[in-house]
Amino acid sequence: MAVYTDVGAEELAAFLDDYDVGQLLSYKGIAEGVENSNFLVNTSVGHFILTLYERRVAAKDLPFFLALMEHLHARGITCPQPVTNKAGEVLGKIARRPAALITFLDGMWIRRPSAAHCAALGDVLARLHLAGLDFGKRRANALSVDDWRSLYESCRDRANKLQRDLEPFLASELARLEKEWPRNLARGVIHADLFPDNVFFLGNKLSGLIDFYFACTDALAYDIAICLNAWCFETDHSYNVTKGSSLLQAYARVRPLSGQERDALPLLARGAAMRFLLTRLVDWFDVPAGALVRPKDPLEYYRKLRFHQKVRGVRDYGIAEK
Amino acid sequence: MAVYTDVGAEELAAFLDDYDVGQLLSYKGIAEGVENSNFLVNTSVGHFILTLYERRVAAKDLPFFLALMEHLHARGITCPQPVTNKAGEVLGKIARRPAALITFLDGMWIRRPSAAHCAALGDVLARLHLAGLDFGKRRANALSVDDWRSLYESCRDRANKLQRDLEPFLASELARLEKEWPRNLARGVIHADLFPDNVFFLGNKLSGLIDFYFACTDALAYDIAICLNAWCFETDHSYNVTKGSSLLQAYARVRPLSGQERDALPLLARGAAMRFLLTRLVDWFDVPAGALVRPKDPLEYYRKLRFHQKVRGVRDYGIAEK
Repeated sequence: MAVYTDVGAEELAAFLDDYDVGQLLSYKGIAEGVENSNFLVNTSVGHFILTLYERRVAAKDLPFFLALMEHLHARGITCPQPVTNKAGEVLGKIARRPAALITFLDGMWIRRPSAAHCAALGDVLARLHLAGLDFGKRRANALSVDDWRSLYESCRDRANKLQRDLEPFLASELARLEKEWPRNLARGVIHADLFPDNVFFLGNKLSGLIDFYFACTDALAYDIAICLNAWCFETDHSYNVTKGSSLLQAYARVRPLSGQERDALPLLARGAAMRFLLTRLVDWFDVPAGALVRPKDPLEYYRKLRFHQKVRGVRDYGIAEK
Repeated sequence: MAVYTDVGAEELAAFLDDYDVGQLLSYKGIAEGVENSNFLVNTSVGHFILTLYERRVAAKDLPFFLALMEHLHARGITCPQPVTNKAGEVLGKIARRPAALITFLDGMWIRRPSAAHCAALGDVLARLHLAGLDFGKRRANALSVDDWRSLYESCRDRANKLQRDLEPFLASELARLEKEWPRNLARGVIHADLFPDNVFFLGNKLSGLIDFYFACTDALAYDIAICLNAWCFETDHSYNVTKGSSLLQAYARVRPLSGQERDALPLLARGAAMRFLLTRLVDWFDVPAGALVRPKDPLEYYRKLRFHQKVRGVRDYGIAEK
């Protein structure tokens, strides 16, 4: 949960004067988004989310994220859209922070996704990847294989405190991932953080995607690997092949997976687990002062990574080799 | 800010099945309320606040609070109203906690109240006191003079760490308050926590009051003393007599203050400052684990208390002695 910055009513009313969004009726700081401060804003014309970008989000990346939301929405991917102010800008400033007013998306995230939810996710993920193909901006993934070593270095000294022999485990896995990481897969825009809390449903129908602040240009199949990690394990960290199969089959119906992508998937899944294991480890040992955030359990991803290490091929995830 | 308890979409939809409030469209945990977990719930028929009562609020007091909101609303005090479920109850249960669905109130709280805001507050406070006169339930104030000694005992050892000689200051002030506390003033329902963040405005018009979870039966003038502390000091802790006068005059126009109440006001203001100084001190030294709350500065109320100690009579607050 996160509201790092307080915004006063007087200040917000002045900010909204720059937009054609009617009269401010109410606003509440909401417990959503770890990187930013978010407010739900109700005006006489509707609901909006006001996002204040805190220091952890690089200001130079904001135009990429905001333009991507507009691009995807225009191509039929339901996601929040930045509202343009009277000066024609989507990025404003409030409380000395860059800020955007964004349309509100109905829907709730599912705590215990079923195979049907995973199928809906696979479908929208493939459509997102296709919709992103003609997006003009590029942004390197700042949390991919080339960035993991520095994360590892920053937490290796303390890793064994959390789990016996975690440090050598990380070292050996990292060396392997760096050596074998596939560099020639189909690339494009990926969401890179499509966890259940970023996918809204109304009833059983997927109603939209949110939180594009990790989106970047990378291997499309890596996005699938992230989703397999985030959606297809049970709370006891066992892999549910029915959910995995639903996700993968639904994806492949919209965007067929190449043989190369299928071959690479087990390694990509290991990499995705490694990425969340490392960032959670760093956060675990280094909760920023005043962040008011409970760090997430890193070992969840250690256990997932151990599963991926035992996988013999993509068939173990629930889809055929070719 | 507070969301102590997570509520899943599936769980919330099941809870709302017991109410006639249409289809659940979205909900967000909101950063409001230190004692409870609060969610803003949007359905096809409107907005609501779902409050989960955490352990700090005694379950036995909930009927008092909820009935009071209904009582005051029926008498023209704009405040949230608990929604009755299909079984005719206002109190339900979700995530193993007592919970109430409450109507949403438009409006924003004012960070820097002006004298006009203070006048609006004085007016509504007097109307609240009058509206409460025929409320049938009683609830003792759990944070009044008789309760301060145990608060003091629980933090006296550490008080001097925060401010030199704070411990003897508290001891001497507490002894005097216990000795001189007025016991024969007009009593009734008081809000007891009517800080600016519990008073909503739309433009310059007061649009409603929220957060009745400290409401109780006590001296009406003590509620005024709390408001003088909470509304009429500048950020440098100096008393603004224009604001105080606006509040008191507006109050007295609706409910005239007796000579006894006027005489007692300086001591009541000292007591009110003492109450917030003590509870903030306790919170300062004892932030509950996982509360994700930044404790408020106790010394703000030390400085206000020092002001009140120098007051010679009610005239210093901006209203005549009789």
